[in-house]
Amino acid sequence: MSQKDSVCSRSYFMVVMVFVHVYILNVMALLFYVYYTSDSAHPPPAGDIALPPPAQSAGPPPPGQPPAQARAQPTHSLQQFSRLHRLEGIKVGHMQKVDLVPNKVHYLKTLSLKPLLFEITNFLSEEECKLVIHLAKLKGLQESQIMPSDLQQEVIDEMDISKEEIFNLLDYNQDGQLQMKEVLTHTRFGDGVWITPENIREIYTGLKADPDGNGLLSLEEFKELNTNAFQTYLRQRGVQKTELVRNSKHTWLYQGEGAHQILRTIRHRVIRLTQLPPEIVEHSEPLQVVKYDQGGHYHAHHDSGPIYAETSCFHTKLVANGSTPLETSCRYVTVLFYLNNVSGGGETAFPVADNRTYDELSLIQNNMDLRDTRLNCDRANLLVKPVQGTALFWYNYLSDGEGWVGEQDEYSLHGGCVVTQGTKWIANNWINIDPDVQRQIQFQQAISKYTNEEAPAEWAVDNIYQDLHVEL
Amino acid sequence: MSQKDSVCSRSYFMVVMVFVHVYILNVMALLFYVYYTSDSAHPPPAGDIALPPPAQSAGPPPPGQPPAQARAQPTHSLQQFSRLHRLEGIKVGHMQKVDLVPNKVHYLKTLSLKPLLFEITNFLSEEECKLVIHLAKLKGLQESQIMPSDLQQEVIDEMDISKEEIFNLLDYNQDGQLQMKEVLTHTRFGDGVWITPENIREIYTGLKADPDGNGLLSLEEFKELNTNAFQTYLRQRGVQKTELVRNSKHTWLYQGEGAHQILRTIRHRVIRLTQLPPEIVEHSEPLQVVKYDQGGHYHAHHDSGPIYAETSCFHTKLVANGSTPLETSCRYVTVLFYLNNVSGGGETAFPVADNRTYDELSLIQNNMDLRDTRLNCDRANLLVKPVQGTALFWYNYLSDGEGWVGEQDEYSLHGGCVVTQGTKWIANNWINIDPDVQRQIQFQQAISKYTNEEAPAEWAVDNIYQDLHVEL
Repeated sequence: MSQKDSVCSRSYFMVVMVFVHVYILNVMALLFYVYYTSDSAHPPPAGDIALPPPAQSAGPPPPGQPPAQARAQPTHSLQQFSRLHRLEGIKVGHMQKVDLVPNKVHYLKTLSLKPLLFEITNFLSEEECKLVIHLAKLKGLQESQIMPSDLQQEVIDEMDISKEEIFNLLDYNQDGQLQMKEVLTHTRFGDGVWITPENIREIYTGLKADPDGNGLLSLEEFKELNTNAFQTYLRQRGVQKTELVRNSKHTWLYQGEGAHQILRTIRHRVIRLTQLPPEIVEHSEPLQVVKYDQGGHYHAHHDSGPIYAETSCFHTKLVANGSTPLETSCRYVTVLFYLNNVSGGGETAFPVADNRTYDELSLIQNNMDLRDTRLNCDRANLLVKPVQGTALFWYNYLSDGEGWVGEQDEYSLHGGCVVTQGTKWIANNWINIDPDVQRQIQFQQAISKYTNEEAPAEWAVDNIYQDLHVEL
Repeated sequence: MSQKDSVCSRSYFMVVMVFVHVYILNVMALLFYVYYTSDSAHPPPAGDIALPPPAQSAGPPPPGQPPAQARAQPTHSLQQFSRLHRLEGIKVGHMQKVDLVPNKVHYLKTLSLKPLLFEITNFLSEEECKLVIHLAKLKGLQESQIMPSDLQQEVIDEMDISKEEIFNLLDYNQDGQLQMKEVLTHTRFGDGVWITPENIREIYTGLKADPDGNGLLSLEEFKELNTNAFQTYLRQRGVQKTELVRNSKHTWLYQGEGAHQILRTIRHRVIRLTQLPPEIVEHSEPLQVVKYDQGGHYHAHHDSGPIYAETSCFHTKLVANGSTPLETSCRYVTVLFYLNNVSGGGETAFPVADNRTYDELSLIQNNMDLRDTRLNCDRANLLVKPVQGTALFWYNYLSDGEGWVGEQDEYSLHGGCVVTQGTKWIANNWINIDPDVQRQIQFQQAISKYTNEEAPAEWAVDNIYQDLHVEL
């Protein structure tokens, strides 16, 4: 009986309660442990990919460890980050539903597979379009391209490359003569001026560069020319805006945290559309708003260049070790918004979309340059008419087959056809991703460090893209 | 003191031990619970897709439940089964490593994106090729196509369709006249004979069908013709083998359980190559071995037809409810093996691979039929030369965008060019998948039931593909 009494005693009750509490706490801890470990063992489906939390690498490294950037990445977070979602095109004309805005249905229509290009009508509402134009006007627009007369003439005479070497590089078919198209593919000659076959003939005559008048330059004729002869000639003769590669004005609108609500909304919608990691989209270039007046155009070009072993990206070059001779903007994706309806012209042309083959030289045939959006838009494989609120979305790079950014997609060549009547307003969102996954991760860590250190986010973004924006 | 004693007492010890055991058991149960629930919440990555174990649906249903086939599928197993792996082509010329045979490296080379087509050199060894040819010879080969004279003439005069209606269906461009190419695209006219522009002219003359001799048939001229006029004319005039759609011999080699080791090995290698569910590949058609003698050919065709709402697949029609007017073989994938080196000709031609557009009528232009592999192989967009051991692998259907089989890929049009010297041996593996995922699942369950009931597996497969094999 005394035992039974003792079981009901106060001290026994205390012991049991401690047991019960320890038990409950243990079970809860176990539940949390198993939940979180099993979660990280199964990577979330593509599209929900998240960077490791900034805190992981942002703080000062523990004593005895190398600094965060130099430290090898844990394979765990690398795996999570190294697969990018890429939409399926299926076939030209294929329609797929997308969920971008609550209680509204949008359709993605495949316009081409090379490049992988989609059209989404009513991506922006009329009000959103008008507000973006308004914000751009408030910020003020600048000429997209500086006139050659305002540019300092480059001194490349001192370059360590001989005339013979230059001639050989230009002479694609190695027949010892420069055909007109061999000269035309090298836009550098024009110093920002769009070189046409007529220009070439005019320059040859003006410079007496082709005395036999056969339209071809021999090595001897080429050697007689000053390295900057073309540029110098054009500066002296004077250049019209319509003779430039692009004839437009533009500005940049910051879209990061604290930006105008409408710009935030557009960014979030782009994240839903592309299903790319939000951290990457948030740290991509600001929104570019472009205005083409009547007569405006942009000859066909690639939004981002090819990738070689030595190529680095503008946005990650700060975190990459050393500088490289080749740089490009690494714009994996372009999202182009039409902000108004254009009275005449202003189509977006994809001259070689879904062509069987891509050959740079065959873009120019019989004095006809397919890239010329003032003359030859009607010959483009694909022409998209601007319609207010419609978005175009394409990939400037192929997949590397492992879920990351691969080679440049040369078929993404596109341009803005001449505006024959009225004004054309568009906006561009680019998503910048380094084809080197390690460099992209380093960039994300570096930029999240800026943000954590309470530097204004705008400053960080603007700083990184500064060079790029000046160049463009 | 008496309280302290009671804590050390025997009964107190018992209570504590019960607590401890209950605690341990609870924790273990919880661990198992959390582990298994979190596992099924994350579906396995594509490529590891497995069918629900046959036992799940094979046994007799528990009393009171409807039979297995009629029962609704649990969404769980459906999800596992409803995403098919599809390889990435990236771009023409892209190479990717594949792991097919231990200690050996194979490369997949992308030959075209439309259709999605790959080449794998040394997929089979020389010995494997020779053995397959040997096994085919042992089994014996039959003519791939029956001569029209041996066919019973179809009676379609009784069909409930008027001459006007037929004329209207044939008159693609609705200009009230039948151009030669409007007649040529309808191979049915030939009764297995390949109709060329020369044939048409010959038939028109023989039948006095085109009295005005302009090469066009008006409705009036068309009405004068008997429905089977073309077939009847060709039967009477007599037909050479080289005038048929295909001129080859073939046989079928069973590849299922119990088959020759080399055939099993090839099947397993095809599963690794395509990364499609093994259960689907195992229940696809047997291996077709084809022999083209000198002069042999196969004009360009699709291995499997288009899918309409009413179309059913040969392999699943037994499990589908009711019969449908349209049927096709639903060969999602073709794997073609070259078993020998051919002395002359015998290339595989893809006339429209990676064309910008596909237009059936534009295959025939100016009396030139791109599908004709006796005359126009040199005009094909892609020609593959037979090399012993090399495999070609392509998809005859697009993706539906949700991981299942979608529309027919019209660009998969291909044919065997005429063998100008020697003999050509090839083999074909087709992977049959119903574009209706539910029907494919029902088929898999039905066939696994056969297997479980100890009926010989060969019987089940042969039974299902019987019609198909006779037709081919």
